[in-house]
Amino acid sequence: MKLLRYGPKGGEKPGLLDDEGRIRDLSGVIADLGPAEISPEGLARLASLDIGELPVIDGEPRLGVPVAGTRKFIAVGLNFADHAAESGLPLPAEPVLFTKAVSCLQGPNDPVMLPKGSTKTDWEVELGVVIGRTARYVEEADALSHVAGYVCVNDVSEREYQLERGGTWDKGKGCDTFGPVGPWLVTADEVGDPQSLDMWLEVNGQRMQSGSSQTMVFGIATLISYISRFMTLEPGDIVTTGTPPGVGMGRKPQVFLKAGDVMRLGVEKLGEQQQTVLAWDQGGA
Amino acid sequence: MKLLRYGPKGGEKPGLLDDEGRIRDLSGVIADLGPAEISPEGLARLASLDIGELPVIDGEPRLGVPVAGTRKFIAVGLNFADHAAESGLPLPAEPVLFTKAVSCLQGPNDPVMLPKGSTKTDWEVELGVVIGRTARYVEEADALSHVAGYVCVNDVSEREYQLERGGTWDKGKGCDTFGPVGPWLVTADEVGDPQSLDMWLEVNGQRMQSGSSQTMVFGIATLISYISRFMTLEPGDIVTTGTPPGVGMGRKPQVFLKAGDVMRLGVEKLGEQQQTVLAWDQGGA
Repeated sequence: MKLLRYGPKGGEKPGLLDDEGRIRDLSGVIADLGPAEISPEGLARLASLDIGELPVIDGEPRLGVPVAGTRKFIAVGLNFADHAAESGLPLPAEPVLFTKAVSCLQGPNDPVMLPKGSTKTDWEVELGVVIGRTARYVEEADALSHVAGYVCVNDVSEREYQLERGGTWDKGKGCDTFGPVGPWLVTADEVGDPQSLDMWLEVNGQRMQSGSSQTMVFGIATLISYISRFMTLEPGDIVTTGTPPGVGMGRKPQVFLKAGDVMRLGVEKLGEQQQTVLAWDQGGA
Repeated sequence: MKLLRYGPKGGEKPGLLDDEGRIRDLSGVIADLGPAEISPEGLARLASLDIGELPVIDGEPRLGVPVAGTRKFIAVGLNFADHAAESGLPLPAEPVLFTKAVSCLQGPNDPVMLPKGSTKTDWEVELGVVIGRTARYVEEADALSHVAGYVCVNDVSEREYQLERGGTWDKGKGCDTFGPVGPWLVTADEVGDPQSLDMWLEVNGQRMQSGSSQTMVFGIATLISYISRFMTLEPGDIVTTGTPPGVGMGRKPQVFLKAGDVMRLGVEKLGEQQQTVLAWDQGGA
């Protein structure tokens, strides 16, 4: 299933994408797509529905984050060898974790806003994992059974805040609008092997990132098992698993986002996003 | 006002502490103490109640986190010069930020659980700030008007996970049970100047930390203004503002928590906490 939330910010309704690419309304069946609805039991219930009976939504409504109630947005750094190299940082011996503030979560096509005074805002296409079952000290072999599905994520990053302002990376990762997620939560059964998905990102039509989840340093099962030793992952939590090479910081000369730029990105099977970049005082958040 | 939440984990009811130290039930007035109830409007409504009319709760029920619906738990590192020195780390030029996973939040007297295999779990008494009004690019002079109130926090930390496992400090700060908060949310009007509060912590009756919010490197108004440039602080978010010297890592020889230890800690005007330390498989979370 391709699950989604559609409608104005803060007023999203649950829906799903049918095989013809039409949005079907789920609001007569469930109130929202939150932790309970993406649990194994919740997904089994949705999978048993007769999709043809669900109302079709006309037009192209705004899409929100495809899961509601996310309490943690955990990110993995330097998880592609080529990206670590372009960042001038050594390949980590074990996964590098940081946190994106949940207040940065937004729909896949909402504008991305440059923070006030920012000169180093950058892009990162990533494969995101949405947790469907509580994960605490889970074994690697059992880790993927805790996944509800996968999402495309743009791990937007302010490099000066991340790397030059002291302390942890969190400072440059959670600015408002820095967490576009979606368009859909694609359930794990429909994705199949999450370690063979192509990933790409363009800025103003120019290809910047090309990669595949195949070349991750630490695979998704390893990451979930690893993270679950440091904190309990809960249904609705999102783990975003690192970016392939081609970020603006790694280019020679470096390139960063400016107002008016358009990012387009996608992960195979998980759909595409498009964001226009706004100056900090042009709204967005 | 001293606001609190009492009752079993997950089933807490809102209440307040009256001048005689008795818990008064607020569940007939509000459903919970969440973001709306601790907004300026929500607090004004509570302040207008006739406390003598509220039912008295007998006995000594368990206390939960005194605010519900916290989405971000942001922490400030090395914010006391003496603590930076004992950590062997330079005094930061600007605030060091990290994130505690919200899944570590728990009541002030719930047991603290050692992570599986942990040998370096440590204590940190801190002054926590609960946000009551959305803070985004706020000026220092206006920052404290965004505070609903203050809480005592134990920023429990696993030093190996924090410092020796690569990546950010977040790995050692968000383990289950690592975020005792409370007993009360003391509203800002009742606290007065938050920069003159004594702070202390004992382990098994031995005084380990003694300090005062007076000696913070960056004061609370500075911190709120600063953080609000990197992320939007929302009602219910908690900012914990750093610990004075005396942590186990800083002692010679180092001392860390073991199962059976008892921590007692407090911040002047904000009440006291007491936690028994459990092994990872003794429950707790």
